[in-house]
Amino acid sequence: MQAKINEISELLLKNDNYLIVTHERPDGDALGSSFALLNILKDSGKNATLLLPEELPDKYLDFVSHDYRDHIDAYERAGMSWCISLDTTSPDRAGVGMRASLDDLKMQVINIDHHPDNQLFGVHNLIVPDASAAAEIVYRIAHAAPDKWKISPASATLLLLGIIMDTGGFRFDNTSADVMNISAELLRLKADHHQIVTNMFYSKNLSYVQFEAELITNHLKLDNSGRFAWIYIPDFLVRRYSVDMKNTEGLIEGLRSIAGMDIVALMQRKDDGYKVSLRSKNERFSVAKIARQLNGGGHEMAAGCLIKAESLQSAENILVAHVERIFNEVQSR
Amino acid sequence: MQAKINEISELLLKNDNYLIVTHERPDGDALGSSFALLNILKDSGKNATLLLPEELPDKYLDFVSHDYRDHIDAYERAGMSWCISLDTTSPDRAGVGMRASLDDLKMQVINIDHHPDNQLFGVHNLIVPDASAAAEIVYRIAHAAPDKWKISPASATLLLLGIIMDTGGFRFDNTSADVMNISAELLRLKADHHQIVTNMFYSKNLSYVQFEAELITNHLKLDNSGRFAWIYIPDFLVRRYSVDMKNTEGLIEGLRSIAGMDIVALMQRKDDGYKVSLRSKNERFSVAKIARQLNGGGHEMAAGCLIKAESLQSAENILVAHVERIFNEVQSR
Repeated sequence: MQAKINEISELLLKNDNYLIVTHERPDGDALGSSFALLNILKDSGKNATLLLPEELPDKYLDFVSHDYRDHIDAYERAGMSWCISLDTTSPDRAGVGMRASLDDLKMQVINIDHHPDNQLFGVHNLIVPDASAAAEIVYRIAHAAPDKWKISPASATLLLLGIIMDTGGFRFDNTSADVMNISAELLRLKADHHQIVTNMFYSKNLSYVQFEAELITNHLKLDNSGRFAWIYIPDFLVRRYSVDMKNTEGLIEGLRSIAGMDIVALMQRKDDGYKVSLRSKNERFSVAKIARQLNGGGHEMAAGCLIKAESLQSAENILVAHVERIFNEVQSR
Repeated sequence: MQAKINEISELLLKNDNYLIVTHERPDGDALGSSFALLNILKDSGKNATLLLPEELPDKYLDFVSHDYRDHIDAYERAGMSWCISLDTTSPDRAGVGMRASLDDLKMQVINIDHHPDNQLFGVHNLIVPDASAAAEIVYRIAHAAPDKWKISPASATLLLLGIIMDTGGFRFDNTSADVMNISAELLRLKADHHQIVTNMFYSKNLSYVQFEAELITNHLKLDNSGRFAWIYIPDFLVRRYSVDMKNTEGLIEGLRSIAGMDIVALMQRKDDGYKVSLRSKNERFSVAKIARQLNGGGHEMAAGCLIKAESLQSAENILVAHVERIFNEVQSR
């Protein structure tokens, strides 16, 4: 793996004029790794452009610069050497604009990701499944030629942000010895740990806290003797508390933190069905497997899908049946 | 500091028959560092005894062995070489039994602590204020002679437990680069990070989560444009959810983590009045001052009192008036 990391580092040093893209609905790692790579390339004398067609979740605004683009024309792309795709499993999940896929950009792609189900769509594919975060891979690339790549305090903060958000603040099972050592190094490079923690964990919005409390009080459901819990989020509550659904990562983590639960889920109405986010507390209960059976995808511990169903009740029945099957499979092994 | 650490490591290697003590009401770091040191000494061929006169909090029972003592007789102490005090600022805070002080043991003490206000009561004092946890210091002592001190997976787990509990899971400002590197090393030594995180952070009781949610949904009140928030906890809810009120530290910390709040409080019926717990987010707003005015006491950021009043309404009025006065005083300075 180190050879491949060195190769990408050298490729990036040799070329210039990069386009950076990441997945749609970008989270802390997507944004942290993308803005960090943008900074590192620029700080080391390269031209680079970050394409982010979506509005960013509020809580990340303190960390990101405003020098990203929401649109790139074909004539601009013609002057660029490589498209670097970060944290994105497949071309159609890339956030490149309305209904577009990464393939539509018609660029040669360096595909950098840590998801094991990455579809290897690049000319170069640097997939590091044991990396906790895409940000960790970006760090490793920069670290491969430490005299050539500059990691500023701002870049270190962005990389640590990505790592903290993708490890649940060093709580998930992907919290490896390597990621701890890399985080130590980022702190030495003056990553602003205090600001990350304050903004990510200690700045909850009151109406959001009330929204979560009302969901737990009135909309929490249990099955499988309490081993599976889920919340259907009605649209009227989202409106009542003016919740920005871009900021709901914490809710499902809160559910996962309850004793005795093995799998938890959030459901929301979307298009002609119900969008489901799934989290597992234990690698034995693969929510990726559930999601894939329902035409979705993700990691063993965090996955998602869209259940097409006419009513909430039937979507819930489908979900509960799939969760039950996973529990039964593990039990019968 | 490294010289002093080496000196203590050598002293411990040279002698034998140790008594280990820690502070009363032991927390994760007190227990983690004490049991880890007990293991490390024993695994390296030494005799060691851990004195813990109190019942241990449930959540730590999975981590500790049962080979500790709740009482040590004088004749036993006579056969011991040194008393090692861990994580304890002063002799009277040591947990050595009912109304006793560490001085009553009449032993020569090796005083190992990371609190800057440690009273230097040992023959040897190894005070490391930049260590995040006493467990971090125990690791550094063992690491000073890695070929002689054995850190088993169980010891590594106990040390990581101490570090995780004293850094708030790597969220407090004491999360240094050093502690990240040490944690990486503990993971390599097979510390059971998964079990620590599961037991410490992912084992909230469902009925307790529902209790908190219902309090926020139905019993949260605001004043001073939302800068003061408080919750009155009705007894019937405590009964409905079978809540152990010893475990409610998280509720007021949750309130404090809400953006825009400067002072938060919990109120509960008690005797002929209302017990009030107060927290401040900012040292400028001293809740100790409010508590003292109401015949209570505490720290600037965390204090408590009992408001004698016939009705909740009049107790709330008194509390709100005192909070308002603090806000006005700070504003008018």
